[in-house]
Formats: sequence, structure tokens, C-alpha cells
Amino acid sequence: MLLLLLLSCSAPPAPFVTSASSGLRFVSSSSSLHLLPAVLKHTGRITLEQTLRLRGGDSNDCNEFGGYQVLNNEMRESFDTVMKRRFVFMQSFLIHGGVSGLFDYGPIGCSIKNNIVDAWRKFFVVSDGMLEVACPSITPHRVLEASGHVKRFTDLMVRDETSGECFRADKLIEEFCDVDLMKDAKHSNETRREMMMSLKARAGSMTIEQVEDAISTFNITSLSTGAKLSKPLPFNLMFKSTIGPSSGSSVFLRPETAQGIFTNFKRLLEFNGGKLPMTIAQIGKSFRNEIAPKQGLLRQREFEMAEIEHFLANGETGHVEFCKMADVEVCLFSRTAQERGEAESWTTLGQAVEDGIIALAYFLGKTQKFLRQCGIKAIRFRQHRATEMAHYAQDCWDAEVLCSYGWVEVVGHADRACFDLQMHSEATDVPLVAWEQHQEPRERRVVQATIDRALIGKAFRARSKLVVEALEKFAEKEGEEALAFQKGKEEGAPEALKLRVEEEELEIPAACVSFKETIVREHGAFYYPRVVEPSFGLDRLFYCSLEHAFYVRGNDHERTVLGLPVSIAPFQCCMLGLSSNDQLMPIVYEIHEEMRKMGVNCRLDDSAANIGKRYARMDEIGVPFAVTVDFQSCQDGTVTLRERDSMEQVRVPKEEVPQLVRSLCEARESPDVSWAAAKERYPSV
Amino acid sequence: MLLLLLLSCSAPPAPFVTSASSGLRFVSSSSSLHLLPAVLKHTGRITLEQTLRLRGGDSNDCNEFGGYQVLNNEMRESFDTVMKRRFVFMQSFLIHGGVSGLFDYGPIGCSIKNNIVDAWRKFFVVSDGMLEVACPSITPHRVLEASGHVKRFTDLMVRDETSGECFRADKLIEEFCDVDLMKDAKHSNETRREMMMSLKARAGSMTIEQVEDAISTFNITSLSTGAKLSKPLPFNLMFKSTIGPSSGSSVFLRPETAQGIFTNFKRLLEFNGGKLPMTIAQIGKSFRNEIAPKQGLLRQREFEMAEIEHFLANGETGHVEFCKMADVEVCLFSRTAQERGEAESWTTLGQAVEDGIIALAYFLGKTQKFLRQCGIKAIRFRQHRATEMAHYAQDCWDAEVLCSYGWVEVVGHADRACFDLQMHSEATDVPLVAWEQHQEPRERRVVQATIDRALIGKAFRARSKLVVEALEKFAEKEGEEALAFQKGKEEGAPEALKLRVEEEELEIPAACVSFKETIVREHGAFYYPRVVEPSFGLDRLFYCSLEHAFYVRGNDHERTVLGLPVSIAPFQCCMLGLSSNDQLMPIVYEIHEEMRKMGVNCRLDDSAANIGKRYARMDEIGVPFAVTVDFQSCQDGTVTLRERDSMEQVRVPKEEVPQLVRSLCEARESPDVSWAAAKERYPSV
Repeated sequence: MLLLLLLSCSAPPAPFVTSASSGLRFVSSSSSLHLLPAVLKHTGRITLEQTLRLRGGDSNDCNEFGGYQVLNNEMRESFDTVMKRRFVFMQSFLIHGGVSGLFDYGPIGCSIKNNIVDAWRKFFVVSDGMLEVACPSITPHRVLEASGHVKRFTDLMVRDETSGECFRADKLIEEFCDVDLMKDAKHSNETRREMMMSLKARAGSMTIEQVEDAISTFNITSLSTGAKLSKPLPFNLMFKSTIGPSSGSSVFLRPETAQGIFTNFKRLLEFNGGKLPMTIAQIGKSFRNEIAPKQGLLRQREFEMAEIEHFLANGETGHVEFCKMADVEVCLFSRTAQERGEAESWTTLGQAVEDGIIALAYFLGKTQKFLRQCGIKAIRFRQHRATEMAHYAQDCWDAEVLCSYGWVEVVGHADRACFDLQMHSEATDVPLVAWEQHQEPRERRVVQATIDRALIGKAFRARSKLVVEALEKFAEKEGEEALAFQKGKEEGAPEALKLRVEEEELEIPAACVSFKETIVREHGAFYYPRVVEPSFGLDRLFYCSLEHAFYVRGNDHERTVLGLPVSIAPFQCCMLGLSSNDQLMPIVYEIHEEMRKMGVNCRLDDSAANIGKRYARMDEIGVPFAVTVDFQSCQDGTVTLRERDSMEQVRVPKEEVPQLVRSLCEARESPDVSWAAAKERYPSV
Repeated sequence: MLLLLLLSCSAPPAPFVTSASSGLRFVSSSSSLHLLPAVLKHTGRITLEQTLRLRGGDSNDCNEFGGYQVLNNEMRESFDTVMKRRFVFMQSFLIHGGVSGLFDYGPIGCSIKNNIVDAWRKFFVVSDGMLEVACPSITPHRVLEASGHVKRFTDLMVRDETSGECFRADKLIEEFCDVDLMKDAKHSNETRREMMMSLKARAGSMTIEQVEDAISTFNITSLSTGAKLSKPLPFNLMFKSTIGPSSGSSVFLRPETAQGIFTNFKRLLEFNGGKLPMTIAQIGKSFRNEIAPKQGLLRQREFEMAEIEHFLANGETGHVEFCKMADVEVCLFSRTAQERGEAESWTTLGQAVEDGIIALAYFLGKTQKFLRQCGIKAIRFRQHRATEMAHYAQDCWDAEVLCSYGWVEVVGHADRACFDLQMHSEATDVPLVAWEQHQEPRERRVVQATIDRALIGKAFRARSKLVVEALEKFAEKEGEEALAFQKGKEEGAPEALKLRVEEEELEIPAACVSFKETIVREHGAFYYPRVVEPSFGLDRLFYCSLEHAFYVRGNDHERTVLGLPVSIAPFQCCMLGLSSNDQLMPIVYEIHEEMRKMGVNCRLDDSAANIGKRYARMDEIGVPFAVTVDFQSCQDGTVTLRERDSMEQVRVPKEEVPQLVRSLCEARESPDVSWAAAKERYPSV
């Protein structure tokens, strides 16, 4: 039935790339992620600067970007200490020995992440009128077979032949390059050094044969034991299970949320009144059985994604509201620039579209605005090189954030063309297409078959239905040939028509069929819509927000602050008594209760620590406001309100403080509710 | 090391029940869930009333409760039609053939469910100052072995020996009872009927042998084919997978979120300043590989839970804020009432606690308030009978909601005592305990061993460390016996001490050890805290909210309404133009933009359908307000605002309408922002 539709695809299907390994990864192979810990493992502690220098050859490594200074080693250590001590996040199941690539979010981390999810939903789904769906993680084999993941969602793996330890081949080669470079004595030979740099650059996009070749040429051995390595093998990254009692039904945990959207396309289009463009979003867990995850929150085996599938109407080349983003200034790092060894360049999105650098720029602007709203300061957009794209993609731009791990992909923007809808249509015979109404009916030449069904029935019996279908298809697809046959027939050539039906070549007697050309009027046509996908790794976004928010007061590493934007802070406010005096605590509890009633996420600290220490604790976890009840409160009913970053305080009547804090946290853009306005209105302390 | 701690448990560990099957289920076996579809399958369409009558013997079936009328068959059909037509929810992966027990939430369903999650978080986490955590679904084998799930999280299963179809044994027996009762002719014999009723009542708590016995006694055969059934076998309900490249590490998808909380207990207690009580919450997916899920959203294989673990301080018997709930009126259905065949009874929670019916009533009150806030009308609390509790539970009260499937468990409240913390402590040697400081130091008699290590070393060599440990443990645990030995020794009996060390009985020469009684002063003690767990099935809550919100105007099944509370409605508002006239649409877009800027989740319907039809569409999916731009709007700048349930309309200046809608939706309890207030303030239409 699908074959009878008139299909036009708004973009050619994505080319399959032979090396699928890096293309499906969240972090591009050019990113420096992975290297630092590996280097440390082999060499002991080295400074970030040394590492960056060591990475050499890659012009894109830096520790400062757009005025933002990456955490240096000392800062990173303080940061890690706070994350651990305050249980912001932590490896999972530690009392049972832990599992790499799985993480728990403690109360602080969980709250911040929830706020990021909420903010994302408001910023994308509500504000752009997207439709959000929620589909299960458990996905049947046949769905991911249709999408190409069963075959292509793999990394190349090599095994230490002695210990059995497994390595991702590309990461092993990269680490080998870095580690070997460390042993300077060996590398007086500049030629050899250059060879290694080129090896590192290619590591992410090598075929099995190329990896095998590299291992033998450079005599690469296990990084842990020095033992011989096995031959590289593709390893599918999806977690496998079975469903139902008779363990025959194979399922996977989804490696991306997108397939749930594609499989619902027909229903969603109907929901949208049959109209395109249409934008669908989904927030949820995805799962990837990483071979050897080492980068903390940045490479988890179970992680949260927020994905958007924006389906374009036929002929549309961009988002209808692109004008809103035309003036946004972005830092672009195009494929060409990377290939030529050039640096990134700043431009406006409007200019970039005009210059033909990016076709679909709306979401790049939207993404950058959102990252900035989460307090992220160093952002660039890097285009994938041809060899690193996923099997479904035609063009990819990653939003990368600079942090202490180097440039990290946080958001992928893929032009998936109509790859997925086509694949599912072919696998299911359900046409996942949209209808385009022509403004005027269009005329089209078609070749039609007139079939003598009685004759066919006699000649082919049980197979006659298949033969009829094959003849119709032949007329539709091979019109010229059909007309040539007809011409031959009319000129008296008594030839039969040779036709493949289910793997067998049949001879259809000429009397059974005739062909003629006619003109049909069409009022519209079905087409596979092109889809553009921004895909957020929310855990990475979370981690980068934390690193970018982190600072110390003065140079005192005991006085750390998480300067998180109010909108994503773990608690909006903290209630304190100057001391645990019997006069003060009832007022503390009363205001705390009021705050909770107003929906302010307010933490109470009634511990015995002195007030300075308790402020420091709140700074450390990023609570933007603290309300303190002191002895003056008992007399005049005022309390102090302290702002985290400036440490400034004002005195506010206790009745007004819940509403004031609420307004300050809602952060509506109004001059009446800023901290500056509060300072003007209330006396400072 | 754990053994050296002085442990006291605030409650004895939960008894293991031999029949684990129903105890771990979300729906109790006494619930009528499951029955209706099965009956229909065998008999064709029958009315709900007939079904209820047929179920007979169970006094708790009803189609009306507390003034709420359950959807009858016709209403249920209309309801199902709307759910499907508007893609509220739907079986997953339908284009690929579908998978039972997996569901997709379309834009409407997803939005409602998100709102329920948000409301839950505000009502429980923020308002009660709980700490929320987020742990992965993937859980290592050893964690769920420690918690008892590997061994006990099973259902009994029987297989159709011809077709291979699998049935849950308890459900099969229940269905058999119902189906057989249908064939009235057979059941003139009252004795036989009673036997069957008693069989049905026991189905949920049978052992393997009892199931086998029932199948042979009653000659129960496959409900689908009538073929012979296999012997019953326990089937573990957890999804299994492996993690890492060398597929040796076995993992499960978690069947509940709670274990992530217990394994983090130490860290969370530290976060909370070492203080109890402490309340931890977690919202997230859980997974159960149901044998044969049939009840739509009510029995999914992947579902969302919101769980709370409330850890009590030593000696506490209830929640510190219980007084807030003492006046809440609830309908209780105690174990005793069920066993005696009595009805439910209404009482206040305060009275129930006084009468000793419930120990931990705070969360029952909190749960009921939340369910009502979600628009749920018919709620009772049913206590589990002794045979149906989970392996970890000491007492269980389910919040059940009456809907067209019968009484459905939506929230479980389990007193897990200190079972889980003890099990994980034993498995890991990490003491998951809290410290209780005594107000005054306490004196305690202890028996101490004085050991001659040199002698032990000579006598036992490599095993001497184990022997020393065993002697210390013997003194601690078997004080009286140790003193008796000492007395014998002092009286000259040259006996050796017989002691089990690692499965072997050793003889310790009397010279090696002496025991004496001393008094120690203790400043506090470690203890395993008792934990109480309210556990919400959010998908069931979602489903029941929808059913309870559903009604039709007049008796017209074309005019269906989802009368959802504003706080969980899928969109807060809809923007419409009276027609798609060029004068009107710019105003529509302008107000829509304003709404979005204010964070109002506003849907735009610019289709060509007439205004009545578009209102009906919004009613059908529960949108509480609609703003319409008409020709008067062009003249005086006012628009109409329509309320869903009353269908009343007022005229409001267009500048004021976004703020008005926002205020109405925030539903702060203020007389200024109610619909009644809006009607007073603005002229009605």
C-alpha cells in the first residue's frame, strides 16, 4: 500500500557512514574528554596546564574562553570535595562496592536537576508550544532494528588478553598517544611525534581494520598490564533483556528517546490537525552500556535526555520563527575550520544562515539562550566532520561547553532528514508521511496497467494476486519500459513480459496485460517530512552548570560558593535563628511555615553552629537567600535577608519576607523584584 | 565490626511470609481488578451491575461510594473513545505490533502526568521539607539479593501445555471461580458454591502445593484453550540484564525505588546532621515483568513511582506532626473487618490511632488530602491481611480508589520496620544505624573475655584471629554461659571450652581465657531506625484522576468533559478566534504570545471549526479556560473568558486576561482569584 503513495522526500536520506562508533557518541572524538583521568592514572598528578600542553596539536584546547576561566587543579579539587561532602552526587551502590557509570543524586543534586528539567520544559515546551510525549525505556528488538541501532549502535572494543579487561579502541589509541607523548625522551624524533598526532586525530573514526593495523604498527599493548591485546570487535552498547514469561521476546533499553516519537508520528500529526511544522519533545532516561566509563557524570550508563523532534513542512528550510534568533551571537567551529586547522569564529546566526554555514539555526540560538540561563559561560557550536556523524544524520552541530574536562558536548543538533520515518515505514508498511495540499491541482503523466484477471488467474492460480500487484508496480515504477513492451506488443511481437515475483522470474503472456499513458490530476501529495533534532544531555548540562557556578571567596578554599542562578538553586531560601534561643526559634518556625505555605522551597538550619558557619554552608550548596531571626526581631518584628553572592543584608518586616523571597525567586523580569530594588526599599544591615 | 555495636531495633524484623506473590503486588488479591475483562472475554458483553452481582460474596464491591458514581459501561466506552481519539495514552509501539504492559503518554496525558508529579513534589517534598534523591533503575544483583527480591519477588505461574500461554496462578484461579459461577446451571448446589468462594478468597496467598492441589481438585484447565496446565512455578518479576563488556555482571531493573534510599542511608543521615526523624523521597521509574498484564494503565511493566521513606527516631511511634491530621475523616477497612466479613467504617485518624487500629496514621491523612486534590472522590484505606503482605512489611494499609475496574490500590503504606537497613548492613558489613544519645549515661552489665593471645596463637596458629573473635562474641552474646564456664574453671574443673568457629567445633583450653562481669557506662547507643513507606503508583493515580474527572453534559455522549482540577489540567487555557478573520487573528496571536511569556501553558486552536466545536474539543481534554477574540474585541479591546464546567463567560479587557488566567490557575486560596470573584468583577456574556 505504501508503494502506491506518491512520495517525495524533502531531503535525501542520510548516508550510512561506515564508522558508526563515534557518530553515535555524545562526545565527539575530537573532544578532550577522557584524556585527563587517563593521563593521571599513568603519571601521577599533573597540572591542567601541563595536560593541555601535552594534548598539543589540537588548537581547540584552552583553559579560558570568552572571559570564563576553567577551574584549575586546585579549584577542581575543592569542587570535588564539596560535591562529595555535601552529597550532591555520588557513585551508586557504594556500600555494595559501587558500579561504574551509575550515579546517585543526593538532595542538593536532585533538586538542582529537577529545577533544570522544569526550566527546560518552560523554556522549550511551554514557551514554543511544543507537544511533549512520554514513552517507555523498554523497546522491542524490531523497533531498534528498524532504526538501525541493532546493527550500528556499536563501539570497537579490544580486550587485554591476560586480565580480560576491555577497552574502547578509540579511547585506548588516544590514551596511548597521550601517555607515550609523556615519555619525552622517546619523542625527540619530530616525525614520529607527528605520526602519533595524526593517529590520535583519526582514532575516533577508524574501521576495524584500521584499528588492528594501528595496534600492530605502533605495538600498542594494554594500558593496565602491558599485555597483548585481542583483535578489535564491535560491541553493541544497548542493554539487552527479555520481556514476558516465555523469555523469547528480546527487548533493549532505549539508547535515545527519539524512537518513541517517530513510532508515534502518525498519531501526533493527527493530534496536530494534520499540520506541519510540528514540534515534539520528550524528557526521559536513556541507557548505554559503555565499555569502560571513567568521566564521572559526563559518561553515565543511565542518563537523562531532553530531546526535540522538529518536523518541517515540505519545502521549508528553517524554523518559522527564526527571525527571533537572527541577532544571536554565537561561536561557530565549522567542519571546514576544523579541517583547515583554523580557529572558531564569532558571528550572528542570521549571518551564518546567509553565508550558508548552517541550514537550521533556530535551535542553536534557543539552546545557547537556555545554557546561559543555567549559568553556563563558555559555549561553542562545533560541526561534526563527515566521518563522525551518526548513521541517521545528515549534518550535526554540537553545543560544546568548556569545563575542566575540556570541551564537552552537552547538546547535539542533528539534521536527521527523513531517515527514521522512512525506516519505520519500510519495516512496518505504515506510511509515516504528511500530506501536502497543492494550491492548484497538478497534472502528472502516469502509466497504467490494464490487466486481464481471468487470464492471469488461469495461468498463475494461487500466485495470481502477487502477479497483479507486480504488474501494477511495474507500470508505476518502470513506466518507460512498460510503454516499450506495449509498443512491441502492438507491433505484433508475441513476446511475454519477464517479471520478478518473489525471487522468481515469471513470464507473463502478452495477452494478459496492456499499458497506456494517462494524465492524472493530483490535489496534493504525501511526503516524508524532514526532522531536526536538538538533543540535550541533562546530566552533562547539570555538571557544567555546577562547575561554572563554582567559585571561592578571596583565595580561601574553605569559603566555596555555588553561584547558581536562582532559578536552578537547590533551595530558594534558608531560615536561621541567630542562636537556638527560646525567644528566637518560634519566630523561625513561624516564618518557615509561611514560606512553605507559599511554595517557597525553604530549608531550615536549626543546628548549633555559629551564624557565619551556617551562612557558609548555604553558600557552599548555592542557596541564594538566607533569612535570619535575631534579637531585634523580637523587638521590632524585622528579620535580616542576606543575598548569597554580594553577602549584602537588608532588614525586612517578617510579614513581608516570604512574599519578597518568592518574588525574588520567581525572577520575573520586573525592576520591582530585583535585589537592587530590595536594597533600595529596605534598610541595609 | 557490626557485631561490636550495641544494637537495638525499634521494632522486630518483619516476618517472612511464605506466599510472597500477592504481598509484593500493587493490587491486593482481594481487589476486583482483573476480573471484569476476563469475564467479558468468556461471556460477551455484560453490564457492570451484572458483573458486580456475579462477583457476589465480596461485600466490598460496589458502583457507588461516598456519593461518587462509578462510570457505567456506556460511560466507560465513551471514556475509552476519548482517551484513544485524543491520544491521551495508548499502547506502545503499535505500528510495530505493540507490546502489552507498555504505554505511551500523548501530549495531553504527558502534560497531566507532569502536573501530577509537580503537585506531588510541592505537596510532599517542599511542604514537608523532605529530602529528594534520584538513583538509577539499573541495580546490581547483590543489592537486590540483600533486599530479598532475588529470592522472593516472584509470582506463581502456570503454563497452558498445548499453546504455551502463561497465566498468573492466583489470577487464573480467581478467573476460574468467576467464569464457573457464570454457568449458573452448574451451581444449584449451594455447598459447592461456597467452596468456590472460599477458593477465590484464598487464591492470592496460596503456596505452590496449594495451587497444585486446587488445580487438580477443581480440574482447572487453560482458560483460553481448555488444555491441561503445567505445574505451578515461581517466576521472578524483575527484568534481568548484564552490565559492562564482559557480560558477567548481572543487573536488574529496580522493582521499586526504595532500595536506592536504603543503600544511601548513612550519607543521607549525615546530610541531615545525624538527626532523626528524617524523610526521604524519590520519584522515578520502576519495572516489573508481569506475566500477563491485561488492565491497561493499571498494570504496566514500566511505571512511575513516588516513594517516601520516613525514618523514625528511636522510641517514636508516630510522625511528629500527626496532630495536623488527627481530624481527617477516613474510611478504614481493617484486617479484622475483612476477616469477619464486616463493612468499612468511617472514623477520624485521631480516633483510629487511639483505638489502636493504626500505628502510623500521618501519611494516610496526607495521602487522602493529595488524592482529593487530584480530583479523586472515592477513597478507602484497606489493611493487608497477614498472608498478603510483602516480605519486608510488618503492616500495610493501601489507599484504594473505586473506579470502573473495582477498588484499585493506588498508594501502599507499609511499615517496613528495620528490615531493609538490617539486611543491607548484614550483606555489606556497613552498619546502617543511627546514634541515640542518652540524656544521662546509662550503666550496663557486660561480660568481658580476658584472652591469653600467646597461648591461643600456639594452639590455633593460622586460625587464632578467628578464635579470639569467637571468644569475644561468645562473651558478648552468651554472657551467662561464659560466667558459668568461669565458675567451673575457678572451682577447678579442668574443662576446655567448646566453641563453634567457622562450622567446626573447637576445644579452647581453659587456661587460654577467663571471663568476668563488669559495669560499663554508655552515653548512647546505635540502633536500626524503623521506617514507614508511602508508595504512590503515579500511573494509577493518573488513570483514576481521569476516570473521576470524566462526565458528559446532559445525557449527550458527544459532549464529554474532563473536569480535571485546574492544577493538573493538560493546558491551562486555550486561545481562539471566533473565526479566522484577518482582523481577529492578530489579536489572538498577540494574547497567546503574552500568555506564553507569563508562563501560562496556553494552547492555540486556529482551526476552521466553529466555535462551539472548538469549545467542545477543549472540554474533552479538560482545558479549564478558553479566551475568545470576537468582533467586539476589535472595537472595545475586550475578549471573552469561558470557564469549562459552568460554561459561563465574562468579558475582560485583553490586557488583563493573561494575568487573570494565570492567577486563576495558580489557585492560591484567595477570594480575589476565584471564578466567582471574576464573575463579580467582569460583566458576564
